[in-house]
Amino acid sequence: MHGSDFEDLVNKFMKFPGIGPRQARRFVYFLLAQDRIFRTDFIKTLEGLNAQAKQCSRCAYFFVGGLNQNLLCGRCQSPDTDKSILMIVEKDMDIDNIVKTGTYKGSFFVLGSLKNKTLKRLGLLKKIITKEGQTSQLKEIIIAFSASTDGDQMDHLLKIELKPLALKHNLKLSSLGRGLSTGVELEYSDAETIASALLGRH
Amino acid sequence: MHGSDFEDLVNKFMKFPGIGPRQARRFVYFLLAQDRIFRTDFIKTLEGLNAQAKQCSRCAYFFVGGLNQNLLCGRCQSPDTDKSILMIVEKDMDIDNIVKTGTYKGSFFVLGSLKNKTLKRLGLLKKIITKEGQTSQLKEIIIAFSASTDGDQMDHLLKIELKPLALKHNLKLSSLGRGLSTGVELEYSDAETIASALLGRH
Amino acid sequence: MHGSDFEDLVNKFMKFPGIGPRQARRFVYFLLAQDRIFRTDFIKTLEGLNAQAKQCSRCAYFFVGGLNQNLLCGRCQSPDTDKSILMIVEKDMDIDNIVKTGTYKGSFFVLGSLKNKTLKRLGLLKKIITKEGQTSQLKEIIIAFSASTDGDQMDHLLKIELKPLALKHNLKLSSLGRGLSTGVELEYSDAETIASALLGRH
Amino acid sequence: MHGSDFEDLVNKFMKFPGIGPRQARRFVYFLLAQDRIFRTDFIKTLEGLNAQAKQCSRCAYFFVGGLNQNLLCGRCQSPDTDKSILMIVEKDMDIDNIVKTGTYKGSFFVLGSLKNKTLKRLGLLKKIITKEGQTSQLKEIIIAFSASTDGDQMDHLLKIELKPLALKHNLKLSSLGRGLSTGVELEYSDAETIASALLGRH
Repeated sequence: MHGSDFEDLVNKFMKFPGIGPRQARRFVYFLLAQDRIFRTDFIKTLEGLNAQAKQCSRCAYFFVGGLNQNLLCGRCQSPDTDKSILMIVEKDMDIDNIVKTGTYKGSFFVLGSLKNKTLKRLGLLKKIITKEGQTSQLKEIIIAFSASTDGDQMDHLLKIELKPLALKHNLKLSSLGRGLSTGVELEYSDAETIASALLGRH
Repeated sequence: MHGSDFEDLVNKFMKFPGIGPRQARRFVYFLLAQDRIFRTDFIKTLEGLNAQAKQCSRCAYFFVGGLNQNLLCGRCQSPDTDKSILMIVEKDMDIDNIVKTGTYKGSFFVLGSLKNKTLKRLGLLKKIITKEGQTSQLKEIIIAFSASTDGDQMDHLLKIELKPLALKHNLKLSSLGRGLSTGVELEYSDAETIASALLGRH
Repeated sequence: MHGSDFEDLVNKFMKFPGIGPRQARRFVYFLLAQDRIFRTDFIKTLEGLNAQAKQCSRCAYFFVGGLNQNLLCGRCQSPDTDKSILMIVEKDMDIDNIVKTGTYKGSFFVLGSLKNKTLKRLGLLKKIITKEGQTSQLKEIIIAFSASTDGDQMDHLLKIELKPLALKHNLKLSSLGRGLSTGVELEYSDAETIASALLGRH
Repeated sequence: MHGSDFEDLVNKFMKFPGIGPRQARRFVYFLLAQDRIFRTDFIKTLEGLNAQAKQCSRCAYFFVGGLNQNLLCGRCQSPDTDKSILMIVEKDMDIDNIVKTGTYKGSFFVLGSLKNKTLKRLGLLKKIITKEGQTSQLKEIIIAFSASTDGDQMDHLLKIELKPLALKHNLKLSSLGRGLSTGVELEYSDAETIASALLGRH
């Protein structure tokens, strides 16, 4: 009962993360039910984003960067960022979550995941480590992936890939500590978590 | 670390049904990570939808209706639709689901819910019933709301509101039957469902 | 670190419906942590139950029936039970739930499920229908299984198995009505439920 | 429709951890549906447990200890247990889980939780620490509670309560390390977990 534009938009929303066919339809009906002003405004915001969308040339973070030619994100430009320490994460949302906690002031690099086949960024990461390691600016690299099977594989791979560079430029190379996360019960913890929690007792 | 366009779009996505702040951000990052072609194409589809978005003047269904002046949806225009029976539903998605089952060939009316305060459509509904009742085209009205507290209230309200019209134009006025839905276990069924299932035994 | 009695009891609790190894252990620790009076009392209640456990010779319901020789459950004995109508259910808990609703005053028969291979009771059921049909006491049989795949199979099987008896003794043979169960949303209902709800509109 | 023994047993099962009224009934029906041999055997196992149920006089662990007078559990008696280290946990199941991982060979003490008001055991714990600290057998105490609000309160309380004893007998007093538990995603981690994971990087 719908023209192709309806189904076309449903299909596009189905590409959004976590959105199935039912919710995609719900989105289109939601848009149809709004007044024209809401839709026009939504389109305008998207156009603004499209015009200013950038990926940081140093840390691969996506950002909305204005209309100038600058390709460094705010964090990579800022003098307040501690450039002696570099944290490698899977995705942009990880950075947002870590920054929000206020416990880390260093720089980042968004590597992607094995699943997303974004390992082409590994070459870029090595270049940046080499460059910042040579100037003695960089002192430490933290590999910060989730405690999942994918995250563990990535951690293992990066330890192997980055060790030569770390030795050459005298960089500390570490991974996030394991233990009991907030909310986790001892009764349900696995051997690795308990072993890490014992090792990391303080 | 983001400009106002980023946060602006996050806020707009948070108005979409079922979308919280975290998923709204994920959507914006998703759009930033796509290539410009995807985004431009997405915007174009939205513009097409915006230009053609219509609400049916008879049944209040939202549809994408081309650029002409026609304000009747395909179903209300079609000679294949059985105009002798009218089903009143809460929302567009209900129609899609009922149509998909292939068990109903009649016409619809989208009334909205008590929550959404769209009861202003009740006046429109009454006008349509009066008009189609006078021409003797309409024979039956089915009130088809969910078996929830809200749906039951609506059912009750409509029975009262529509009874005079049904009497005047000699229309059958009914509600969807209750009983065991597919997947429901007897052990966990409430008194009303069991009573209805007993009454409706066949 | 535990003797065989501990593990023995864990294994026995794991046979209880819905109990996995972790909860079975939790039960044993719970019992160990109670004082001796609680445990002795628990054992005594179990012994009482064991001495008086009976299965009704007419409806196959399990009950705690005192130390006498009577093998009819209270419902089958009671003059308040409407013997003109017989409802066939899967399990004892279904009876408890239906009785609780107060909408049914007839008699029952617990047949079991295809999964539990208790179809040996089918022979007993036929004998009872024959006997009560001959005396013209019985007028109607209601097949009351859950609206699940298993329940539907059972319903289908019983319709075939009981039809000859129903014809012979002039008994009405019906199944519970389908439709919207309390709490079910129209948007998520399947074709069968919607078709039944339409058919059963009132 | 059931005698008092039925309801009595339902009520007793409702005292078991995690068991509501419906599952308690299901348990009684399950027992009624078993043959007499199963029930008699179940009762016998319970009687054996009741006769031999003991609580270790050193670590407060519940165990099935035979009919002799020995009030020490197997772990507290064993020469393989490392008596130089004592781990304080909330409940017996925590010990089982930690032992299962094979990463800890020391002794335990089951303190209970604030909720269960079993803090009367705190006096016993202090006596044991004093006694084993005086003989220089004990070198370290690990406070091992879940990473929950209750667990954190307990950890805080024990740090205060045990500090004087630890100083007096020169004992190391530590808590389990925090960090990313297996399966935990960085994107969803809270500030405390991230801070701990950063601090514990290795």
